[in-house]
Amino acid sequence: MWSDHIKYHFPMRTHQLVLSWIENELSEGRLTVGGRLPAERTLAEQLKVSRTSVREAIRILEAMGVVRAGVGSGPEAGTVVISDPTAALGSALRLHVATQHLPVADIVETRVLLESWAASKARPDAPELDAAGALLAEMAVDGLAVDDFLALDVRFHLALADAAGNAVVSAMMGSLRESIQRYASQLTSNLPDWEATASRLKAEHREILAAIRNDDGEGAAKLVAAHIEGYYQEAGLGPA
Amino acid sequence: MWSDHIKYHFPMRTHQLVLSWIENELSEGRLTVGGRLPAERTLAEQLKVSRTSVREAIRILEAMGVVRAGVGSGPEAGTVVISDPTAALGSALRLHVATQHLPVADIVETRVLLESWAASKARPDAPELDAAGALLAEMAVDGLAVDDFLALDVRFHLALADAAGNAVVSAMMGSLRESIQRYASQLTSNLPDWEATASRLKAEHREILAAIRNDDGEGAAKLVAAHIEGYYQEAGLGPA
Repeated sequence: MWSDHIKYHFPMRTHQLVLSWIENELSEGRLTVGGRLPAERTLAEQLKVSRTSVREAIRILEAMGVVRAGVGSGPEAGTVVISDPTAALGSALRLHVATQHLPVADIVETRVLLESWAASKARPDAPELDAAGALLAEMAVDGLAVDDFLALDVRFHLALADAAGNAVVSAMMGSLRESIQRYASQLTSNLPDWEATASRLKAEHREILAAIRNDDGEGAAKLVAAHIEGYYQEAGLGPA
Repeated sequence: MWSDHIKYHFPMRTHQLVLSWIENELSEGRLTVGGRLPAERTLAEQLKVSRTSVREAIRILEAMGVVRAGVGSGPEAGTVVISDPTAALGSALRLHVATQHLPVADIVETRVLLESWAASKARPDAPELDAAGALLAEMAVDGLAVDDFLALDVRFHLALADAAGNAVVSAMMGSLRESIQRYASQLTSNLPDWEATASRLKAEHREILAAIRNDDGEGAAKLVAAHIEGYYQEAGLGPA
């Protein structure tokens, strides 16, 4: 419960009461993804708290990727339960990278760990590999802008992670990429020759995908590790 | 920036503007851990937003483990920058476990992945291993309550993870434990004989620590994996 985790305040503040109530509704299955929260006013009356407290709780849930706040009126209005753990973890990691508590080198090392594990576990017939193959075709187009290349690159790596079938690893892996997105984009300017790097990355992507398709999990894991570490080394981060 | 991550609303809402400003101050090093945010009123005037928006942003940062909101007056008042990524990731994961988007089996599998990696990387002379040893001594006391045992168990596993020296892996690993804390506590009631399980867990802890001390990273990794998987299987979660 939230009360266990936000320990600095006692007694529980009213917005935490709202968070606890919503978390409990989710746990009990009374609120599910796609469902709607009660209206702000209703929730405030029911829990005997101010509408400000309800609003604060909803803002937190939004930042955590648990709800999408409603706008306007009609069937699309209201606050809808969603499930976007990657965004939630990504925001949290990004903020802590900003406080310099989480070093970028540790982020890269964790990426290698999660992605090489995923490559070793990905099933050769996973449908996500078709999506990964289609992304490689998009990346093969000549003259792609750097940021467009990087966006496709993120999606390719995520598709491989998804093929391993572990939603937590996928969410964590996506969040790591998200947390250093700005940094990754800056890194490319350190590269001596972007076109040469892009060609190499594309060749490595094809090899990784081929290894997974051939059921060579161990080989795929090594290729992924070398692919990620090689990139950051070339961009000047040094050995991960 | 927050604007990239909370995509559902355009234009950026005012509390997101405050978040972006604070994230930028952190990135640029103008705000650091232990430092204080400007007063709510000052921030509102400076960014030309309402105090409500400032308050909402601070609530989000609190939930993300980035600030501790101030109470009272005097030198202890004001909103202080902290860095508690484990709490942030834990809250996010817990909420998404509640939405049933993240299966507990995937959480357990990810625990095995991160903790066996950490055991294989932990340095035999890491000071965190002394802390781990001290925790084993505390756990050896007869008649420890189940919840006290579990709390020490979490700290032991975290100390091992810390000995690997990767702050991101430590934060993720801690957050996984936190996300299923309630569940883990319920699981113990499935065990046929808690005392027997506790004895086995304690013996396994000693073996894991000894393997790390002997610089047998590979052995330690296998022992950790068997330790975690064995526990959840015994408690009826089935193979991870």
